[in-house]
Amino acid sequence: MRTTIERRDLGPRDVLIEIRYAGICHSDIHTVRGDWGQVPYPLTVGHEIVGHVTEVGAEVTKHAVGDRVGVGCMVNSCRECENCRAGLEQYCLKGNVGTYAGIDRDGTVTQGGYSTHVVVDEDFVLRVPQAIPVEAAAPLLCAGITTYSPLAHWNAGPGKKVAVVGMGGLGHMAVKIAVAMGAEVTVLSQTLSKKDDGLAFGAEHYHATSDPATFEALANTFDLIVNTVSAPIDINAYLRLLRLDGTLVSVGAPPQPLPVQAFALFGNRRSFAGSSIGGIAETQQMLDFCAERGIAPEVEVIDADAVNEAYERVLKSDVRYRFVIDIDSLR
Amino acid sequence: MRTTIERRDLGPRDVLIEIRYAGICHSDIHTVRGDWGQVPYPLTVGHEIVGHVTEVGAEVTKHAVGDRVGVGCMVNSCRECENCRAGLEQYCLKGNVGTYAGIDRDGTVTQGGYSTHVVVDEDFVLRVPQAIPVEAAAPLLCAGITTYSPLAHWNAGPGKKVAVVGMGGLGHMAVKIAVAMGAEVTVLSQTLSKKDDGLAFGAEHYHATSDPATFEALANTFDLIVNTVSAPIDINAYLRLLRLDGTLVSVGAPPQPLPVQAFALFGNRRSFAGSSIGGIAETQQMLDFCAERGIAPEVEVIDADAVNEAYERVLKSDVRYRFVIDIDSLR
Repeated sequence: MRTTIERRDLGPRDVLIEIRYAGICHSDIHTVRGDWGQVPYPLTVGHEIVGHVTEVGAEVTKHAVGDRVGVGCMVNSCRECENCRAGLEQYCLKGNVGTYAGIDRDGTVTQGGYSTHVVVDEDFVLRVPQAIPVEAAAPLLCAGITTYSPLAHWNAGPGKKVAVVGMGGLGHMAVKIAVAMGAEVTVLSQTLSKKDDGLAFGAEHYHATSDPATFEALANTFDLIVNTVSAPIDINAYLRLLRLDGTLVSVGAPPQPLPVQAFALFGNRRSFAGSSIGGIAETQQMLDFCAERGIAPEVEVIDADAVNEAYERVLKSDVRYRFVIDIDSLR
Repeated sequence: MRTTIERRDLGPRDVLIEIRYAGICHSDIHTVRGDWGQVPYPLTVGHEIVGHVTEVGAEVTKHAVGDRVGVGCMVNSCRECENCRAGLEQYCLKGNVGTYAGIDRDGTVTQGGYSTHVVVDEDFVLRVPQAIPVEAAAPLLCAGITTYSPLAHWNAGPGKKVAVVGMGGLGHMAVKIAVAMGAEVTVLSQTLSKKDDGLAFGAEHYHATSDPATFEALANTFDLIVNTVSAPIDINAYLRLLRLDGTLVSVGAPPQPLPVQAFALFGNRRSFAGSSIGGIAETQQMLDFCAERGIAPEVEVIDADAVNEAYERVLKSDVRYRFVIDIDSLR
């Protein structure tokens, strides 16, 4: 459904962005369907945004008209709490301002990137290097940083065994990034249907989680498991795949609680952790890292009219690996 | 009930210990009641053992007749897996040999410390410094190391805010040890009934978890929470008390799974971890640390005939803070 939304007037530190592409994230679907709670309708979703700057406020110093830029999952934060001061605005203790369904500085509800333009404070606008194809850059702003941040925080790199659970939009980026960081990467996917892709992305091993033998063969193996699946999984079975001091970090968020057996954590002194996107500085690092290493998401570009159909395909895991809306189709 | 158990003949690397005191651990009660699964009856429990050496095998070099020694929760391990080689025998990938209900090297079921003597491989026998009162030393072998190990691993120390959940046998040792390590310690107990003790042990703050205001006032506060409670707790409420990169580590083990909300982990990039006793080298460190710092458990010494009554009182949290059996009452 097309509609007209208002953007706030350009403030002195704001940037007006003409959007070119917007990625479709599973979170968009959770949100519009109310899986995560009440939704402030009418709402435009989308938090993987790439475009170029068409106007800047009087005090803007970080971006200039014509720059290729991106916006991810948040557009502001309190900037005063200990987490913001540490450059981890995603963990703002007052709650960061989401790119959509948040409360903007003018009191209105923020509206996302399935849209022709957006006005964003310059501090929450990223530089998108030219080395990244523009249509593939959008998913880096959520799927990219959501997987890069925990891989960097928990030290994926040479000598580390990393498993990625799920080979969707987030999972395929986790594989590419962990491989680029130098880790030995294993994909744990329901079936082997995407095995060729996983190996092409650099994974050394690929196992089907529908096969119980996988869990026996890989017990006590991984230093880090990144769980990208937002549906419930048998969390204790996955925890047992961690070796000494290993961490399973969830970046997918099932609405249901996961029943964790304390005994599954006692063995090998395991940890079960959560990670949420990344800070602004780290998001810029991730974009620069991907540009240097030639990493980009695999995308299927669609017109805006195809969004509902795309949602159905995402829910069936029928996309390799991220839908990106060509926003020119909205103009 | 008194009975006669057999100990294996002294091997060349074994130590025969005449037991003086044995602590009563909540695990003993879980075990004898079958809470953790089938029990190989007849079974003698007890894994907080202090006594002195009365005989050594021909190849023993670490201990001599007359030495004051201790035995904790394990009496052997494979010694070959990566965890054993790292000095973390408690995480032996083949399973360490428990001090009771384990399978001993001669194929018999191991029998614990509510007993006059025990034969143990010298590598799993600890030196108990004279500075520690002998009757108070026993609980260090389980309650002491079980709390020392996670406090050391997750860097409790100056500048760190540590919460201890539960003020029982483990909890009161966690308080004393964390204070000695230099952390700012908060006790989270169901009621304020043990507040004076907690403050006397060095805690700076003491809150009742029966008061919902506790959870609001302490949100996003702690670097480390050590959960010593082996009954189910509202894990998500406690996770929300962790600040950025904080860890809640459980050393108590409810048989039921704990339902963890992924969203409680996402905020502040929190971790939920498990920790199990400590390695042999670390257990020796802990004993030496306690001796140097003048730390010892608070104990109530009982005769062997009073064990059943003591169990009932442990289950009612009616002990300050650990029962220790005077094994001379068995002779």
